[in-house]
Amino acid sequence: MAKDMTLLWGSGSPPCWRIMIMLEEKQLKGYNQKLLSFEKMEHKSKEVMDMNPRGQLPAFKAGKHVLNESYAACFFLENQYKSQGTKLIPDSVDAQALMYQRMFEAFPLGEKIGKVLYYNYMVPEEERHDAALQRYKEALTAELQLWEGYLKNPDCCLVGKEFTLADVLVFPVVAYLFRAGLCSERYPALAKYYNSLKDRASIKASWPPTWHTTPGSDTLKTI
Amino acid sequence: MAKDMTLLWGSGSPPCWRIMIMLEEKQLKGYNQKLLSFEKMEHKSKEVMDMNPRGQLPAFKAGKHVLNESYAACFFLENQYKSQGTKLIPDSVDAQALMYQRMFEAFPLGEKIGKVLYYNYMVPEEERHDAALQRYKEALTAELQLWEGYLKNPDCCLVGKEFTLADVLVFPVVAYLFRAGLCSERYPALAKYYNSLKDRASIKASWPPTWHTTPGSDTLKTI
Repeated sequence: MAKDMTLLWGSGSPPCWRIMIMLEEKQLKGYNQKLLSFEKMEHKSKEVMDMNPRGQLPAFKAGKHVLNESYAACFFLENQYKSQGTKLIPDSVDAQALMYQRMFEAFPLGEKIGKVLYYNYMVPEEERHDAALQRYKEALTAELQLWEGYLKNPDCCLVGKEFTLADVLVFPVVAYLFRAGLCSERYPALAKYYNSLKDRASIKASWPPTWHTTPGSDTLKTI
Repeated sequence: MAKDMTLLWGSGSPPCWRIMIMLEEKQLKGYNQKLLSFEKMEHKSKEVMDMNPRGQLPAFKAGKHVLNESYAACFFLENQYKSQGTKLIPDSVDAQALMYQRMFEAFPLGEKIGKVLYYNYMVPEEERHDAALQRYKEALTAELQLWEGYLKNPDCCLVGKEFTLADVLVFPVVAYLFRAGLCSERYPALAKYYNSLKDRASIKASWPPTWHTTPGSDTLKTI
């Protein structure tokens, strides 16, 4: 049971989703949670700011410990509940090295996705330049090609057959890409990865509720 | 000995410096290393691209394992050499939680520093807007105020008295701030943190060589 844990979250946010997958994998049930709306700017509410002064979701506490950064929450939970639920850090040195490298490559990936997807949201109209957006799209394309290469293997997961902490952290980002219209034909290895894991119990149980009821976008269709 | 490890690095780059501090803390001596020049664009050389296809430094290998992401390299080395040199992950649950949270907060910090410091480098002249740079400066100021609050304690380190993996990962970023002209009087807690650790053996031994011989900038003087 996880009655001493509290998660404030937003539907579809990869960082929020990571913690929810982690809690499922570790069989930490019954945590307090509250779904907030980005559209209504609830991530800037006092309730969130009190837990996460950056005004971002997730805001997560395990007992008295504030773990708002999704990587921090996942590492902490893995360490505290090593032998509960799925063991997410493999024993083999080879697998560990690859797991760490891939999970941290989600930062350049996420950054490049953000620059394209949130361009209009982040950049005021009078500061927008087609050339800038074009550069960001090219950078994202090059980044996605790297991941296509990484995932050209017969296995389900980032590190062979075993589901690891790297998948907890990276899968929500890949799902987000397809939700935003990424073309499966152009990125078949990423699509295979997405399809291999989308029905995993922890992922299905924590699927963003708004994704069940609203259509995705086609922003990344031409990438 | 670490004769099977190879580090290609650039002077002053926080990600490169993290790995060098880590190698010192873990007493991994004798690794192969090569100092490259960002100014000469050597990070885009074939030698680097072969190891790190993003064309970034560090490029790091431990045996056959590619660990270019500095966090990946540090986590891997800590796990492989737990009982060698400094133990960098504390046993106490409280300390672990704080360590993970702070180390991953270095990502929003680093991102906000980058947007200010590299504005002219990243944004072509015809796309620059004073208003954008001003926004980035305000975001960095708010971020730095958070860290001022975190470091208002009587201890040397991010997590109390003990030097942890969080310090390996965050210290180079803080040093970079002062190298870029951050005002000690305006950020006394950050300055105290910087001064507490700058003479630590691992940090002194890996101090960016160009910082000994060239002056810093004053880009962040007014932040």
